[in-house]
Amino acid sequence: MRVDVTVVPQELEQRDLGDLCVVVLDVLRASSTIVTAMANGCEEIIPTATVEEAVEIAHSYGKGEFLLGGERKGNKIEGFDLGNSPSEYTPERVKGKKVIFTTTNGTRLLKATKGASTVVIGSFLNLEAATEYALNLGKDVILACAGDGRRLALEDLACAGMMADYLVSRGDLSQSDGALAARLVYQAFRDDVGRALGTSEHGKFLINAGYAGDLELCSMLNVHTVVPCFSQGHIVRI
Amino acid sequence: MRVDVTVVPQELEQRDLGDLCVVVLDVLRASSTIVTAMANGCEEIIPTATVEEAVEIAHSYGKGEFLLGGERKGNKIEGFDLGNSPSEYTPERVKGKKVIFTTTNGTRLLKATKGASTVVIGSFLNLEAATEYALNLGKDVILACAGDGRRLALEDLACAGMMADYLVSRGDLSQSDGALAARLVYQAFRDDVGRALGTSEHGKFLINAGYAGDLELCSMLNVHTVVPCFSQGHIVRI
Repeated sequence: MRVDVTVVPQELEQRDLGDLCVVVLDVLRASSTIVTAMANGCEEIIPTATVEEAVEIAHSYGKGEFLLGGERKGNKIEGFDLGNSPSEYTPERVKGKKVIFTTTNGTRLLKATKGASTVVIGSFLNLEAATEYALNLGKDVILACAGDGRRLALEDLACAGMMADYLVSRGDLSQSDGALAARLVYQAFRDDVGRALGTSEHGKFLINAGYAGDLELCSMLNVHTVVPCFSQGHIVRI
Repeated sequence: MRVDVTVVPQELEQRDLGDLCVVVLDVLRASSTIVTAMANGCEEIIPTATVEEAVEIAHSYGKGEFLLGGERKGNKIEGFDLGNSPSEYTPERVKGKKVIFTTTNGTRLLKATKGASTVVIGSFLNLEAATEYALNLGKDVILACAGDGRRLALEDLACAGMMADYLVSRGDLSQSDGALAARLVYQAFRDDVGRALGTSEHGKFLINAGYAGDLELCSMLNVHTVVPCFSQGHIVRI
């Protein structure tokens, strides 16, 4: 068994993902929001690349059956029910509901996982549950960072590093250079993973945009045991 | 002024490199070999993407005017004069000569720098000279890692991190998440950068392939002051 970390979605291109388990990480904020929604009883999330696609899919459902969620440039999309803040995805709002969901980086990464046999959504919130699930599958694991606009994002790399650390401590695994680098980055923040979020470029952007509270919500460790799984265009609980 | 580190060549795609200084890093071994050749009096290096292109360019020169150098899967190409080991690029072999040069990852990265106003070749061997040159230009800097087969390579990231550390210590620079991550990786090897090369996947591959000596040659710090520059298809001394 082998653990690998990819830093940007482009690293997954031209790669046979075949019999691998890919753990998708977009800490600020898509992964954290999806995990929160699923933990709060959301039935299903349908990620889309564009706003237009989200609206089109919405037309195929009856009113009241679904919610539209997501962001562009960090903010809720006009006419949508929910943005991309975990704080919005409360049991009152999402329990038993489908959410059609579009974000900038997270959706791009999900598309890049095409061909992988297992794709799960990871975050600090469900870190142990998602990592244990991957470990128990016994397949090679790719911890895939969403990054920020096709670039490295510190918070994703720190989360991948913490997962890789956990995997290496639990099993007899070989690791790629990417996994080793991610672990070294994580170790610099191991006493306080929240600091990685506050230090990151996207973290600073969100603080300036008025979402400082989301950094705290996205850095809570192991508060959920749900492991959302992406398959055939839908995210559901395993 | 800002310092950025890109971990894989794909990060440079779809990006306007305009008025930037890009420092190209392929520690094992293209950058180190180019720096060694230039320090030993090589007149010019012409990098090519394919073996065929190298042979074609060779036909436009007279016999004795040039050498063919490079590797595929780590080894010298059949019929070529030189491989991709710095040890081969001695003054006796390369002084006053042109070298037509093809390697797997290094050449791909050079192609990805298209559009950048300044492209220099960096390595541990000329780390201070290349970094000082970039600093004195006063432009934003991208430390661009070649990686290994479109994937993160530990030795390149450690070298980029050491350069970023140097830049941040010398000037009032802002840094990207990539630069910060690279610095954290470098700091884990700061007492012995050679250990980063020996730990890396490509380093282990080269040791198994019989090139252990090259890891030592490529980890020598600041033994050269030459700053090779890539412009319009040619690498020359600045």
